[in-house]
Amino acid sequence: MAKNEWGLTQFPVVPGHEITGIVTEVGSKVEKFKVGDKVGVGCMVGSCRECDQCANDLENYCSKYILTYSSRYTDGTVTYGGYSDKIVADEHFVIRWPENLPLDAGAPLLCAGITTYSPLKYYGLDKPGLNIGVVGLGGLGHVAVKFAKAFGSKVTVISTSINKKKEATERLGADSFLVSRDQEAMEAAAGTLDGIIDTVSVAHPLLPLVNLLKPHSHLIMVGAAEKPLEVPMLPLIFGRKSISGSGIGGLKETQEMVDFAAKHNISADVEIISMDYINTAMKRLEKSDVKYRFVIDVANSLKVE
Amino acid sequence: MAKNEWGLTQFPVVPGHEITGIVTEVGSKVEKFKVGDKVGVGCMVGSCRECDQCANDLENYCSKYILTYSSRYTDGTVTYGGYSDKIVADEHFVIRWPENLPLDAGAPLLCAGITTYSPLKYYGLDKPGLNIGVVGLGGLGHVAVKFAKAFGSKVTVISTSINKKKEATERLGADSFLVSRDQEAMEAAAGTLDGIIDTVSVAHPLLPLVNLLKPHSHLIMVGAAEKPLEVPMLPLIFGRKSISGSGIGGLKETQEMVDFAAKHNISADVEIISMDYINTAMKRLEKSDVKYRFVIDVANSLKVE
Repeated sequence: MAKNEWGLTQFPVVPGHEITGIVTEVGSKVEKFKVGDKVGVGCMVGSCRECDQCANDLENYCSKYILTYSSRYTDGTVTYGGYSDKIVADEHFVIRWPENLPLDAGAPLLCAGITTYSPLKYYGLDKPGLNIGVVGLGGLGHVAVKFAKAFGSKVTVISTSINKKKEATERLGADSFLVSRDQEAMEAAAGTLDGIIDTVSVAHPLLPLVNLLKPHSHLIMVGAAEKPLEVPMLPLIFGRKSISGSGIGGLKETQEMVDFAAKHNISADVEIISMDYINTAMKRLEKSDVKYRFVIDVANSLKVE
Repeated sequence: MAKNEWGLTQFPVVPGHEITGIVTEVGSKVEKFKVGDKVGVGCMVGSCRECDQCANDLENYCSKYILTYSSRYTDGTVTYGGYSDKIVADEHFVIRWPENLPLDAGAPLLCAGITTYSPLKYYGLDKPGLNIGVVGLGGLGHVAVKFAKAFGSKVTVISTSINKKKEATERLGADSFLVSRDQEAMEAAAGTLDGIIDTVSVAHPLLPLVNLLKPHSHLIMVGAAEKPLEVPMLPLIFGRKSISGSGIGGLKETQEMVDFAAKHNISADVEIISMDYINTAMKRLEKSDVKYRFVIDVANSLKVE
């Protein structure tokens, strides 16, 4: 098969990797779940289970991990994601769903949630009283704000446009808002942040963000531009700063994250749609016209005979 | 005064920031030193002494630090570095020189040494048995190899040219050598290094270096290209890797570093020159024609009347 621009083999794509539902059947050796349990399946459905990463509950960094869609499963078939009324998965890659976490608004936590929760934990940004920046207020960004607030942080949302200020500060509870093109405001905030989660997946200047960081802290990229970004080295050196990546999280941490979300009443802001609205939804996504995730109500869309 | 391309005020330059010598006079309140002591002065001669960085012995990350040359001192004068027979410095910024560390070959440790020692310590790369990469075999790189070996690492030198292989492995004791343009060898070594110290100060591709790292590890830039470098974000995300900066070290750590160097017989490889050779040395530096640092023997060059 052809390889895409990221060097990954390009299979036919049927997407969907933030999947929740009810167990309808279990294999004879399944121990974690029984019929009727609420569960979730996120970005991964397999990994080698033997390497250092897997042994440390970091299946997401296993070099042989299997994505929930557009990947090659162990039996040779292609994985086809969550746009379907059923999915069969190894219990290790299935998350127990907390009773009080909604199946619909909670579902996006399986990617958007863990992608922002994991780096906040790993880089020590979960301690109360820190100043955390969140770049971009979309599917990932709005969840990042909620987790950072739940950790007790003072959250600054950084966006290209002032339009999102009211939404960020009044509805999502961010403490302040910076327009990245407002040089004066950006300079006034220089050296004030303990860490930044950057969720923007198109090319954008990193230097203004690096300048917002205190020494010894991280600009954490979770949204990836396809092309390399220009990074100035001297500001990294003068402040012992890092530009770091982080990608989803392991199964153990994903379980911890949904349990934390349930405890703190965190879910994504979603617009529920039916299957036949998908093409319209895709067009609206291109225009960023959604607050903040579409969730497909498969059960009420697909009438299985 | 004008600002240079790094945004720093551009003073007249008289360089020299790896300075060793003998104390000839002390102020009435000096407690650390007496006349006759061997001492060193490195890259810094001042800082605010009040901020969080200074309070944590990280004067090198103080926003008001004063460089040993081409900087504005607290009394308003410009600092003029070590190309002189005397330097007056605050005792806090003076290093006690270990008895068995040579004044000449040890001097470059005050910048090249601490610049490589500090990140090896900070990023946890000082534990025995790790695989450490060193990019570039010059003034900083050859000292990085020595420190990493002293920490008990397996050291891989990465260079653009095979010419340095014998020098790296036979004379400096590196365990292996990679030519960065040899794609096959670079691919074979993918994912094997626990950390990389990159000492190269001209633009060069970072992706091949990022690919050499294990997950969760750092490509540490200590040599800074003036222009921004292109950084691919996806490999950082897929491996939770970082591109990090590090700049010299604080006074406490610099003292620790020279004491460690003395204990492990580490010094730089130097060519001793006299003052009147400087212009020739500068021309040779442009051609990288030195192994690995020129050291000016000021005492025997300047005949002070």
